[in-house]
Amino acid sequence: MATDHVKVAIVGAGTIGLSFAALHLMKNPNCTVTIYDTRPDLKEYMETKLPEFLVDADVKECTSRVSTASSLAQTVSEANIVQEQGPENASFKRTTWAQIEHYAPQEALFWSSTSGIPASEQSKDMKDQTRLIVVHPYNPPHIMPLLEVVPPPSTSQEVIDRTLEYWRNLGRVPVLIRKECTGFVANRLAFALFREACSLVAQGIVSVEDLDSVVQASMGPRWTVAGPFKSYHAGGGEGGLRSFMDKIGGTVQECWDASDKDVKTGSIVVGEKWQEDVCRQTDEAYGVFDTAERDYKTKAVLEAVSR
Amino acid sequence: MATDHVKVAIVGAGTIGLSFAALHLMKNPNCTVTIYDTRPDLKEYMETKLPEFLVDADVKECTSRVSTASSLAQTVSEANIVQEQGPENASFKRTTWAQIEHYAPQEALFWSSTSGIPASEQSKDMKDQTRLIVVHPYNPPHIMPLLEVVPPPSTSQEVIDRTLEYWRNLGRVPVLIRKECTGFVANRLAFALFREACSLVAQGIVSVEDLDSVVQASMGPRWTVAGPFKSYHAGGGEGGLRSFMDKIGGTVQECWDASDKDVKTGSIVVGEKWQEDVCRQTDEAYGVFDTAERDYKTKAVLEAVSR
Repeated sequence: MATDHVKVAIVGAGTIGLSFAALHLMKNPNCTVTIYDTRPDLKEYMETKLPEFLVDADVKECTSRVSTASSLAQTVSEANIVQEQGPENASFKRTTWAQIEHYAPQEALFWSSTSGIPASEQSKDMKDQTRLIVVHPYNPPHIMPLLEVVPPPSTSQEVIDRTLEYWRNLGRVPVLIRKECTGFVANRLAFALFREACSLVAQGIVSVEDLDSVVQASMGPRWTVAGPFKSYHAGGGEGGLRSFMDKIGGTVQECWDASDKDVKTGSIVVGEKWQEDVCRQTDEAYGVFDTAERDYKTKAVLEAVSR
Repeated sequence: MATDHVKVAIVGAGTIGLSFAALHLMKNPNCTVTIYDTRPDLKEYMETKLPEFLVDADVKECTSRVSTASSLAQTVSEANIVQEQGPENASFKRTTWAQIEHYAPQEALFWSSTSGIPASEQSKDMKDQTRLIVVHPYNPPHIMPLLEVVPPPSTSQEVIDRTLEYWRNLGRVPVLIRKECTGFVANRLAFALFREACSLVAQGIVSVEDLDSVVQASMGPRWTVAGPFKSYHAGGGEGGLRSFMDKIGGTVQECWDASDKDVKTGSIVVGEKWQEDVCRQTDEAYGVFDTAERDYKTKAVLEAVSR
């Protein structure tokens, strides 16, 4: 599909919309992109902002394949792919998708970038409730390879396959999430570690900055090369994960039990007292953060691991 | 300290002992290393095994600075640093440290590589119970930069400072853990994410291999460049972590609540029914794992991020 001409409609020109637009343009030389947003200065905004996302790319060539549209109908009427990143509001999304379905070609793929509203909820006002699937990025998508593909139970295999294939052809890492669930998978995993991090800082065991150093000097690089299951499988030697659990399982359980106790004792609930101290420490450690350096270094890391 | 001549005594020639020996030899050209282990073939074993850890180094030069010793007394009697990685057994460690204290110079630093037995417990039979501190590596230490430095409450600042300084001079990332706690910090964080990973796989939401792909394509590279606090601080824009929590805190709490419910429902306790399915999936996905490739790629990632 990536080798044929593809018309991509981007609905919503926030940071994620522009990042996705840049991703399609940079990775798929055969695509054109139409962007829609209700902001009145859309054309000028695009001309200024989009080039910031076109990192290490031929900006002139890429922007020659973008246009803006003034209505949803015009945006999607010839689209092969419609990608939505509007406000995180279920009723807004329901209305928008019913309109998109009305105007878009029958075969167009419908993708929502939502981080939490399941496709089965967004599609409730659509005639065909099996077309829409979630394609949730890890921000920013023009840098990070992961795309969580979360179809509702009734979605056809063909829609799933076409979605996975498109992203694989663009060199990304689309991962199929088999059941719609709260937060999908990436955030669930990240927030689980984040809760433990907040708990350890709240107890005065480690500072915010030192905790970040721990992760940057251990799990970060390790999990870039081998995810947690693969890592512990390696840790078990020839017996693999089974052997790891036999040898280290007791320690793992002790840590889980300690976490449960501490999270409870420390009241690690969003908005409670611990939060202000963690935020203050973070401010003091980092001030205003430079995402350009983060993205530049992330690209270097991703290139290193893919060699 | 790294510029002066340093005599390092390595007690215990398992994988971690050899990896630490290699680390000292490769990163500190002014050190000599004496290795002690009760295995009868120590000398031959060392000659065969140690070179495997001397990655991209002058093996001949490095091995010219290593010797083996046939008694604990001989091993530590002139040491500036004694680093212990014996069996994870509290009474063994207590006895060993009392002997080491007896034979070693007064000023020598005492470091245990234990992953779980606090220094305050290991030092119970020592005359001076403030000298010993834990220096816990993230395996293998000749590759991974993190060292968790965990002193008992009574340790002098001077011992802590000398320890941190030695490792910083060697280009490593020693992180001070301020209170002795179950599992220290790195494993607590990693196991928290691992539990969530096991829970999501046990519920059939994602496969083992796909979950690893999620982490490798998102949190791994992100957290190599910026740890969790720094990442979410960046995610909050100019308002930093505070703004992130204001905007996304509700979602974070929903994910935490869902995790608690699922972990309970799915009985994610070590040794329960879910474990066999996770181990089987991991076996099928990876077979016998090649740690050489993992370590080679990890080095490339660490080089990329440090540029």
